[in-house]
This record gives sequence, C-alpha cells and structure tokens, in this order.
Amino acid sequence: MGEQEKGFLELTKEIALLNEAVALLEWDSLTGMPEESSSYRGELVSYLASHAFEKSTSTEMAHYLSELHKNQSELSNELKKMVEKVQKEYDLNHKIPQNEYKDFIKVTSEADATWKKARETQDFKVFLPSLEKIIAYEKKFITYWKKDEATNYDVLLNQYEPGMTVAKLDKLFFELREGILAILAKIKENGTPPKTDFLTRFMSKENQKAFSTAVVKKMGYRFEAGRLDDTIHPFMQSMNRKDARITTRWDEHNYKMAIFGIIHEAGHGIYEQNISGKYDYTPLSGGVSMGIHESQSLFYEIVMGSDKLFWLDNYSLLQSYADGELDDVDFETFYKGLHETKSSLIRIEADTLTYPIHIIIRYEIEKMIFNEEVDVKDLPQIWNQKYQEYLGVTPTNDSEGILQDVHWSGGSFGYFPSYALGFMYAAQLQHTMAKEIDLEAIYKTGDYEPIRQWLTAHIHQYGAFKEPNELILEATGEALNPRYLLELQDRIYQMVYDY
Amino acid sequence: MGEQEKGFLELTKEIALLNEAVALLEWDSLTGMPEESSSYRGELVSYLASHAFEKSTSTEMAHYLSELHKNQSELSNELKKMVEKVQKEYDLNHKIPQNEYKDFIKVTSEADATWKKARETQDFKVFLPSLEKIIAYEKKFITYWKKDEATNYDVLLNQYEPGMTVAKLDKLFFELREGILAILAKIKENGTPPKTDFLTRFMSKENQKAFSTAVVKKMGYRFEAGRLDDTIHPFMQSMNRKDARITTRWDEHNYKMAIFGIIHEAGHGIYEQNISGKYDYTPLSGGVSMGIHESQSLFYEIVMGSDKLFWLDNYSLLQSYADGELDDVDFETFYKGLHETKSSLIRIEADTLTYPIHIIIRYEIEKMIFNEEVDVKDLPQIWNQKYQEYLGVTPTNDSEGILQDVHWSGGSFGYFPSYALGFMYAAQLQHTMAKEIDLEAIYKTGDYEPIRQWLTAHIHQYGAFKEPNELILEATGEALNPRYLLELQDRIYQMVYDY
Repeated sequence: MGEQEKGFLELTKEIALLNEAVALLEWDSLTGMPEESSSYRGELVSYLASHAFEKSTSTEMAHYLSELHKNQSELSNELKKMVEKVQKEYDLNHKIPQNEYKDFIKVTSEADATWKKARETQDFKVFLPSLEKIIAYEKKFITYWKKDEATNYDVLLNQYEPGMTVAKLDKLFFELREGILAILAKIKENGTPPKTDFLTRFMSKENQKAFSTAVVKKMGYRFEAGRLDDTIHPFMQSMNRKDARITTRWDEHNYKMAIFGIIHEAGHGIYEQNISGKYDYTPLSGGVSMGIHESQSLFYEIVMGSDKLFWLDNYSLLQSYADGELDDVDFETFYKGLHETKSSLIRIEADTLTYPIHIIIRYEIEKMIFNEEVDVKDLPQIWNQKYQEYLGVTPTNDSEGILQDVHWSGGSFGYFPSYALGFMYAAQLQHTMAKEIDLEAIYKTGDYEPIRQWLTAHIHQYGAFKEPNELILEATGEALNPRYLLELQDRIYQMVYDY
Repeated sequence: MGEQEKGFLELTKEIALLNEAVALLEWDSLTGMPEESSSYRGELVSYLASHAFEKSTSTEMAHYLSELHKNQSELSNELKKMVEKVQKEYDLNHKIPQNEYKDFIKVTSEADATWKKARETQDFKVFLPSLEKIIAYEKKFITYWKKDEATNYDVLLNQYEPGMTVAKLDKLFFELREGILAILAKIKENGTPPKTDFLTRFMSKENQKAFSTAVVKKMGYRFEAGRLDDTIHPFMQSMNRKDARITTRWDEHNYKMAIFGIIHEAGHGIYEQNISGKYDYTPLSGGVSMGIHESQSLFYEIVMGSDKLFWLDNYSLLQSYADGELDDVDFETFYKGLHETKSSLIRIEADTLTYPIHIIIRYEIEKMIFNEEVDVKDLPQIWNQKYQEYLGVTPTNDSEGILQDVHWSGGSFGYFPSYALGFMYAAQLQHTMAKEIDLEAIYKTGDYEPIRQWLTAHIHQYGAFKEPNELILEATGEALNPRYLLELQDRIYQMVYDY
C-alpha cells in the first residue's frame, strides 16, 4: 500500500471514529440524557463534529485527494470510490467557514431541546427562533455550495439522493400523486371499508414489545448488534455495523403504530448490520443514500409488513400477545383492517396509500422555504392549509402538525423526498425478488432468511460503494419506475376494499 | 486574561471534552451496548483517550505549564491549583510512551468483556490473560513513575489519594482492624443477634426502584441531572455536573442490596452535581480524590443510611412498597435487622462493621502484586485463603470471590484503600456536622436539604480545588482520625446487639 493511500485511510478512519462518538452522543441525547445536560451536550457534539469537519477539510486531506487523483488508474475500485466520495464531501464542506459550521452544529443541538419543549407545549413559537436560525444557516450554506443546480432546493436534494432534482421529482411525484388519487377515487366510489375497531383495543407496551421484537428478529434484525429504546420520534442510529440501534414510541391503544414503527427502524438497522466488514472505518461503511436507506426500512414496513402471507404467518402470535382482545377477530378481518386508508395528520401513522402525500406536502413546503421567500413564522398556517387541501384534515395544534417530525430541528432539509423514493425503490425491489425466490414458500415456512439474504446480496453488502441508481439498475434491470409501487398498492387496496 | 492563561484553559477544556466523550462511551459500554460491538468500542475509546493523553503530554502543554509557572505570583488561586494539578498529571503521563498507553486503554476495554464472561462462567481463567496484561502494564508504568516513594505500591496509592503511603495505611488499617475486631468480640461474647428473616422477603424490582428513587431524591440526588440504570456492578459516572449517572443491580429477595447500593452511588452523584460551575471544563471540575469521593457515597450509605432517625422517617414508606411483606415487622426489629453483622463474601453486600475488612484484604493482595513477586494465576487461591482467615468464609466460585469487583479490569490498582478512607472521612464529617446543625430535627421534618447544604458548603463545591487533607482539616478542625468511625460503629452495634 502506498504512503498516500495509507495516510488517506488513516485520516478517514479518524473521521469515522469521531463520527461514531458523535452518533452515540446524539443517540444518548434522544434516549435518556438528563435534561439539564443539554447545553453541555451541545458543546461536546459541537467540539467533536467540528473536529471531524476540520479533518475532512484539512490541507492534509486536500493533499491526499490530489495525490490519489493523480494515480487514479492504479487504485482499486473501492479506493477510487472512497476518494470520489470524500472529494465530493470536501468540495461541499470546504466552502463553509469553520466557525459557521461549528455554530450551526450547536444551533441544531439546542434546537433539539426547543423542539421537544415546543411539542410539549404544542406551540410552534417555542421552536420558531431555532428553526429560523437553522434555515438562515442552510440558506447561507447553499450560496457556498451552489454550482450549476437549477434551483436552490436542488442543492439540498442532491445531497441526500445523488442526482435527484426538482425537475425529476416534480415529475415522479406527479405520477405518484395521480396514481394514488386514482386508487383513492376507486375506493371512494366502489370500496367497502374494512372493520377496524379492534385496532384500538388495549395491548400492553410489554406485549407490543415482545411481539415486535420477535417479528423483527425473524426478519433478520440482530439484537446482539442492536437495541431498542423509547423516544418521541422513532429513529435508527448506527455507530458501526455491530451497533445499529433502533427506537420507538408506544400507544397502548394503537399497537399498529409501534409494531410498524419498530419494523421500519429494524429495516434501517438490518441494512447497516449487513454492510460488508471490509468497509469498516472507511467512507463506504454506511448506507449509500437516504433514499436507499428508506427503501430498506420501507421494504420491511410496507412491502413485507403489508403482505398477506406475512400476516398469515404472524397473526396467531400477535393474538397470543393480545390477552384475548383479538380472539374474536378472524384473520381476513384483521388483515383488511390493517390496510384501512384514512387521512391522517401524522406522517408516521399514515397508511401505505396516503403516506406519499405527507411527503409531497413537506417537499412543497421545503421548496417554498428555499426557492421562494416564505416567512418561517407562516409555516404552520401553510402546513395546515396543505393538509386540508390534499388530505381533508387540519391539525388542531402544532404538535400534530408542523412539529411532528424531528428532521428540521436537525437541519435535514431535502431529506423528506427520500421517503417517497424509498417507497418506490422498495416496491421495485420486491417485484424482481418475487421472480427470483419463492416468497410464498418462504412466508409459509416462517424462515425469512432468504429475503434478508437477497437484500444483502443486492443492496446491503455494498454499503456506499455503489450509487443508488446503480444498485437499483443492477438489482432490478431497470431505472426507478413508480409503476411497481402503484401496482402494489392497487393490488393490496383492491383486496382490502373490494372495489 | 493573558495569552498563556487563555491558551492553557483552551487546551484543558479540549481535554475535558474528550474525557467527557470517553465517560459516556464507557457508561454506555456497561449499561446496554450491543455485545458484538465491544471491539469497536475499544477502538473508539482508545482513540479518544489517547487523543486526550497526547494533549496533556504535548509540548504545547509543557510550554503553558512552564510559562504559567514563571508568573505564578500573578495567577489566581484557582489557576495556580489548575496548573499544579495538570503539572502533576503531566509528570505522571509524560513518562509513558504514547503507544503503550494506547495499548493499555485497549487492553482495559477488552478486559471489561473478558471479566464479564469470566463472571458468567464463574471462571477466573477466562479473565486471567487480560488481568496479567493489565498488571504487566501497571508494573511497567510504575518504573516510569517512581520517584522517591518507599515501595512500588506507594506509587499507585498516591495517585488516588495524594500523600497516602503504605506506611501510613498500615498504621491506619491496623488501628481500624483492631477496633473492629474488638467490637466483633463484644458482639460474639455478649451480643443478642437481631431478627433478619424479613430481609429476604420478596420486594419487586419496581417497588425497590420506587422506594430508592424517592429516598435519594430526598437526600438531594437530582434526576434532572442524572439517571439510574442496571449493571452487574453499580457505579456512578459523571459526564459533567449536570449529568452524573448512577447504576445498580437488583435481587428481589434482597431489597437491602439495591437500596443501599443506589444510596451509595447517589452520594457520589450528589458530590458531582454540587461542584461549583466556575470549574466547568477545567481540571478542577470533578471530585478531588477517590477517598473524598467515597466519603460522600459512604456518608449517604453508612452514616445517613445507618442512622436510626433516618429510618424512623422512611420505614413506613418502605413498608408501603413491600406489598404487605413488612406489615408484621415493627420499626425496632427492622432497624436492628438492617445492622446484622455477618461475614459476607461480597464487598458491596457487606455490613458497615465488616466492610473495611474486605478492603484490607484487597489492600494486602495489591501490595503482594506490586511489592512482592506473586503469580497472577495464584490470586484466587490467595483471595480465598484471606477470606477464610479474616472473615471465616470461603468463596465457592470465582464470581463470588476474586471476580466480584470491576476495578482491576479497569486497571484501578491502589483504588480500594480509598473506600476505607472514605469510611473514616465520612464518620469524622458527621461528628462535626452534628455539632453544627440539629440532625435530630432535620430527620424529624423529613427535609434533608440542610445536610446536603452542609456537605456542599464544606466539601462538594470545591471540586478538586482543595486537597483531601485540607478539606477534612477545614471542615472538622483536625486531621483524619479513625476514632470517629469506631465510635460510630460501637454506638450502632451496641444499640443493635445490646452488648
């Protein structure tokens, strides 16, 4: 190994280690850190993150990048990819003055606390000053980053899903929305609504936990390399491939929420747990993009978790945890009830059909923030209007409206569209998977390992080595196509609503 | 503020931040980190700790120390103390080659895992290779550190309790042992053993937790700046004064263990939570020594927690959490039963009378390890012989013998004597406190705040600004004197055994 390569790998390893520490500090600050410690944690995260930032934008890094670039033809494919990825990040970060980035990290850390307080008091105004600061920073950063992107918001989109643009998304989301509206119209016209009263029957937190834990273990989530905690907003945080933690929230009169929430986060965790060890401590050691990450969480949540055969295999187990509450509910009734479509205020409680509408609302608001001159204090009103317009529902307070998601308090603008991309990727992956392995037989045996193996073989193992479009093309033989998701939804909802 | 002072404080702040990160990583690795992540965690802790080490031994630090030393007369008392403390650590660390220290940190991190496995399998041999490595490193380090200390073990003692020596300790421990043996002899001759069968009655973990939590809150432990978790071995870990976490273990047929364990760790936590904020991020921000730290945990555990008036105030609360199991036990019977003295195998389960004997055993073994040529593999046998000789009991396996404590797996040799020092400090502090505030009235009102305030005023607030002997002298008007502990014990055990 050449001197340059060795130095480069050592430096990227240091960055990976600092990021690992920051990941744990952030997980801790959301799962159980004493409340009064918040500003101390902000200070610490800021210190370590800015340290990692310094290294990734250092003259030392610039030197390695330029040296390795010169000898590109002699590099392994893996190393070439690492250099390319670090170069991209270098170009991105290099333009932000270090003190601004440090301040920004501090602001997001404090915003986490004000967001929580705002949720408690159901009052957006508590969060407003933090949000304004975060948006102001993002806008400033865009001026540093912008190259030839068509709009400001394109700059952010591209960071989460390489190559994604407002132009492409407008088209994809149009097709998706039209397709969903068509299904919703069929349901409204000819559908027979399923029975759902049993979904709000009591199930203790302990029993929900026991069932969800059993199910995600079957799916392939390994607790030896993970754990489950309680948070306001569920998330997966990976320190390394042997430590990919998930969280959930509970409602003893809505067991569906925690079950599907845990399955979703476990899907993220399974992805991280199965990335090849050869990428440890390199820039390729994590998932490649937010969209592909969501494709894995959503595969488990809305593809597997919506499959009739999956529930045929697991319904009796759920019944056994229901303390008799589900004894009078036969399988067909239960399965149909799971797939009631109903306009919801909360994204993570939305059904698989209307979910993308929640994303489209956030997408439109984010476009307004960055491509138009909207006043941040007007956002709750805009939010509420859009929910009324598209879904026919209006939040009664900010906690069930604009304050529901953690993303903006962390400065993650441009992230939301990934969820809808993940939906489409997931359905497309299943379409191909179903041709290659006998899913019916797998669900019947109750051994889901072949499904996990297929996903590991085509997606997980590569970490960030292959680009999203490359992964999807190689796994399915074609580029992203919304058709498979719409077909999947039509199949499920036709079965449920009998339209 | 001069340039040198500013630079020095910035550098020590960086070290404090790195140590804070390491503290959380270590807390996490003991409270719930996924098992497979152990080697990754070792790598990360090693990286950050060696980073802090580099800074504290850097030429930059040497420069600040020498410059500030030159202008000593112009420095504030606080800054003078900081410089002195950092200089001492510099001299200590400066002598260890960086790669050796890095390896050592890695070894202790792995030792934590082998110690746990050894406990599970009750087999010292599983832990032996790690322990041998740790001891070999410690011995090597002693050769670097040793100045004019009389013995090798003195070098380690002095690190935990400044100024402590084998010569002094031999004398203190002799006096203490003789005094304890005299009390034990009186008990054996004329004592009436208390009734204790109710101590093993069932109390659910939840109820033990509810009671202990209520009690330590009354004592002054603030959960807004702390939390309680489960571990094999209880400990307190402080990230900063707003985040001082405690842990415990549970036995539903031995409620006394968790209750006193939690009170003990809360005592450590109360100390950290009440250090003055003006020392934040400086070398003075933590407790001054292990002995003084133990004086606080033991004050709460064996002084307050052994006081008849304390239990008079809290027994009915405990009864209310006992689901009727203590309804037939009157207060006098309960209080006496709490203070049964009985040879125990496990240090943290020992009664307040025999506890120091457990310490003396470890002290003697550590002296053998460092001042004589004992073979590490013979330690379990030596351990077992000493327990038989002093306490008349022999462990049936290594988990209830030499594997019971976490300290050696972390390389903490020379630490154990601090517990016995803490005992003596605690009793001496109470002796003075009782003359200055009306403890009887305080226990009767149930508002313990004046006790916490007295300790904060005389001990807590100073952090590491004052030395142990200085604190004790200023708080009590005399140097450490074992007499108060022996008097306290004689008073309690006379009351209980009626000798």
